[in-house]
Amino acid sequence: MSGRAVVLLSGGIDSSTTLAVAVHEGLECHALTFDYGQTHRYELECAQKVARALGAVEHVVMKIELQALAGSALTGDLPLPSGRSLDEISRGIPDSYVPARNTIFLSLALARAEALDASDVFIGANAVDYSGYPDCRPEYIEAFERMANLATRRAVEGGLTRIRAPLIDLTKAGIIELGTRLGVDFSMTSSCYNPGPSGEQCGECDSCTIRRKGFEEASLEDPAAGRRDL
Amino acid sequence: MSGRAVVLLSGGIDSSTTLAVAVHEGLECHALTFDYGQTHRYELECAQKVARALGAVEHVVMKIELQALAGSALTGDLPLPSGRSLDEISRGIPDSYVPARNTIFLSLALARAEALDASDVFIGANAVDYSGYPDCRPEYIEAFERMANLATRRAVEGGLTRIRAPLIDLTKAGIIELGTRLGVDFSMTSSCYNPGPSGEQCGECDSCTIRRKGFEEASLEDPAAGRRDL
Repeated sequence: MSGRAVVLLSGGIDSSTTLAVAVHEGLECHALTFDYGQTHRYELECAQKVARALGAVEHVVMKIELQALAGSALTGDLPLPSGRSLDEISRGIPDSYVPARNTIFLSLALARAEALDASDVFIGANAVDYSGYPDCRPEYIEAFERMANLATRRAVEGGLTRIRAPLIDLTKAGIIELGTRLGVDFSMTSSCYNPGPSGEQCGECDSCTIRRKGFEEASLEDPAAGRRDL
Repeated sequence: MSGRAVVLLSGGIDSSTTLAVAVHEGLECHALTFDYGQTHRYELECAQKVARALGAVEHVVMKIELQALAGSALTGDLPLPSGRSLDEISRGIPDSYVPARNTIFLSLALARAEALDASDVFIGANAVDYSGYPDCRPEYIEAFERMANLATRRAVEGGLTRIRAPLIDLTKAGIIELGTRLGVDFSMTSSCYNPGPSGEQCGECDSCTIRRKGFEEASLEDPAAGRRDL
């Protein structure tokens, strides 16, 4: 073990691959998942399976009432777009944008990292494939890291915290290839914003569309494509 | 009204004065308070009274389980220091430090500001009197603002968010004088980390010691000094 890391884990492809990267580096990984009232609650089950399978030493699921602050399609406050082409998806900021979500999640991860004296916080942010989220850009991650290293007692005492976004420059296909190489079982992951009770993917939401294209480009089968039961 | 602001309000002297500053600027003020399991829960009642008295148009109290992430003397996980001199209090970072607290609170306020299309987020951070908190320093506030202006959809669309800490350079006495001038009724505020059931101040904790000295230096009576009932 070369150190300790807090890894934000949603239960999707990106965060699961990110956890695999952190584990592969030999870090003692503490997974952190937020139950923020997302309509796609099935991903919370996925996060638990993935954390266990990849060898996180701990998995904290923290409830946070983001709906008290701001509405989003992901918390059921706005309609979720469906059946859009990749071209339509790639225009502008998606409706699934949740105000300041990564800032809130990274802030909470920073607190956890300080409590654990962990040097690294991992996030599966990705700036390439149809992301469009402002809080997934490299300049945002750098600005957060700079702020974090002024924010904590740990920083004042000389312990730097690195905000790591190892997928930031990868395509979805590249992420799927990397995760596959590192042993991620993608049958345990969920991407769909509107899954059935046993995790059936709707195939119509933006996230399903992006996932399908990623597996196609990686020339791999999506093991969750026909999911009825894990 | 010249605009809209989100104001972090704990119910103490600093945040109450900060709300008065924001109201005085003619901003439509949305107060935001966190119930994070603080042992000094009486301050939540104070925040409600202060928000109403100063004319906030709204007051959201959001629950957040910070204890799931990190322990602190303020959430009952460590002993709270008592009976220390101002000299002892001013050494180092206080035991009442809560990991990444201002970062978490500002992040949540940023989400609220984006939902409201508010241009300003106010925080009662203060770097002078025995603060010692890393996340109360001007360089921290500036770094947070820089990050915030890369984080949101609002920022991408050209709407800047200002992180305002109008008390940052004031002494506690200066804050009390300012608040008094702006009509803050300090009998409604609470500073004590260990108050009695009707808000009686213990007089022994660091926060009581700093409050007492502030009123002494401002040559004012603390209207909450003999509090039995508001």
